[in-house]
Amino acid sequence: MSAQPIKDLSKLCIHTITTKPWSLEEAAEKYEKAGVKGISIWRQYLGGRDIAASGDLLRSHGLEIVSLVRGGFFPAVSAKTREQAIQDNLKAIDEAAALGAPMIVLVCGADPGQSLEKSRMQIREGIEKVLPQAISKGVKLAIEPLHPMYADTRSAVNTLRQANEMAEAIDSDHVGVAADVYHLWWDPDLKTELLRCGQNGNLFAFHICDWLSPTTDFLNDRGLMGDGCIDIPTIRGWAEEAGFAGYNEVEIFSDRHWAGDQNDFLDKIVSHYYHC
Amino acid sequence: MSAQPIKDLSKLCIHTITTKPWSLEEAAEKYEKAGVKGISIWRQYLGGRDIAASGDLLRSHGLEIVSLVRGGFFPAVSAKTREQAIQDNLKAIDEAAALGAPMIVLVCGADPGQSLEKSRMQIREGIEKVLPQAISKGVKLAIEPLHPMYADTRSAVNTLRQANEMAEAIDSDHVGVAADVYHLWWDPDLKTELLRCGQNGNLFAFHICDWLSPTTDFLNDRGLMGDGCIDIPTIRGWAEEAGFAGYNEVEIFSDRHWAGDQNDFLDKIVSHYYHC
Repeated sequence: MSAQPIKDLSKLCIHTITTKPWSLEEAAEKYEKAGVKGISIWRQYLGGRDIAASGDLLRSHGLEIVSLVRGGFFPAVSAKTREQAIQDNLKAIDEAAALGAPMIVLVCGADPGQSLEKSRMQIREGIEKVLPQAISKGVKLAIEPLHPMYADTRSAVNTLRQANEMAEAIDSDHVGVAADVYHLWWDPDLKTELLRCGQNGNLFAFHICDWLSPTTDFLNDRGLMGDGCIDIPTIRGWAEEAGFAGYNEVEIFSDRHWAGDQNDFLDKIVSHYYHC
Repeated sequence: MSAQPIKDLSKLCIHTITTKPWSLEEAAEKYEKAGVKGISIWRQYLGGRDIAASGDLLRSHGLEIVSLVRGGFFPAVSAKTREQAIQDNLKAIDEAAALGAPMIVLVCGADPGQSLEKSRMQIREGIEKVLPQAISKGVKLAIEPLHPMYADTRSAVNTLRQANEMAEAIDSDHVGVAADVYHLWWDPDLKTELLRCGQNGNLFAFHICDWLSPTTDFLNDRGLMGDGCIDIPTIRGWAEEAGFAGYNEVEIFSDRHWAGDQNDFLDKIVSHYYHC
């Protein structure tokens, strides 16, 4: 089943990191002008600001705050570092609540100094430790499985199946999954696991961008939708089949695009969005 | 179950690409002197040579030829390119037979211009087309699942489960799997699938190196065993539990190591091998 064609921008959300050089004010103004409806806020954009006022500012531009990015990074060989991660995640939950963001995306973390199994256990423990705070503040937590090329330091959760299993094991309506086509497109089980994720009520977020051929940097060489080899319409169709009706969140890290004019880049995001 | 400690070099094999600057003669001489027992030959080292004589040369140095690397690259949008791939694989089979190599490692291929499903179908078709020639020449074909970061252009087979399923579907004692820790270490199903692979008689080859943190290049930044985060002894233990008793093949692509003194590098390969 192919996705419904995109006819308007009502489900278009952009992550502030995508237009990295812009301040929160610039992003809010420009996104509104371009017709973007949702915005996901990376925490560094909130540094030194009145967070509640920042939320009001964004809403005054007609933007819905979709998520706060990012929490996680729970595993560490050092117990002290793990405790710092818990504290930081509790802080992120408070920030999300103050901002009016309904959800935090979790980049779960990994420590190359220990086994992936141990890191996965610490991820689950970490989520369970901060969950009461998340529930009391009304903030959801979305486990984002990351591409296996990030298994050493960024996430020991590398497939949608692993994320599904963890969310199902934790079994809270405040814990679900953020599915990003960049991390998951290669997975032969992607359709099955997206359907499972949606059917269990765990498909909290859907992120889009593209995989460039060749990709020259491990972090900051993501492509605009349509510029790479990911069949986004097919995957988006599976997400819709799974019941997902939320935003399509554009999350592009790209040294190349960041070095160019961000107005042009935003124009391209919008025009490419119609074909993804 | 942990692996048996490595007590000698009787199962150490090195891929010629690992010491890229060395000619076949240099590699043969140096490997023999270092006590290496197996050698896997990359095809470019055979260019313009009498292949049968090259096999004799290697054996005269006491080296067992473990595999010829590499065949594959079957998928392509263009039918002409696919046919060229078939021809090239038939040639590789003849080369392996002439060299006295019992096996060809298949880097299966992928074309970013078509779906992964289509590429996977073409991989299976390609293998089945060249299989009669492989059987008649007594050369085995080892499907190597490649890390998902290579799914765009190098292989649409990205997990050991996929490789197992393909080998089982083709169901020939001349088609099996080459398992490389670099490609597979992140996979939560690795133990299960290694056992399945061995129990089905399909574990033809076991490749080792390490994943560096950080890794700075998609292709040529592999690490020496022990310099990265892969728990090789545990994975090697699973391979042994699966019945594998073949060579541990060191396959390291590294601009950094290639730029240094290859004699020192070979010394390090041997010393690191004892701890992996």
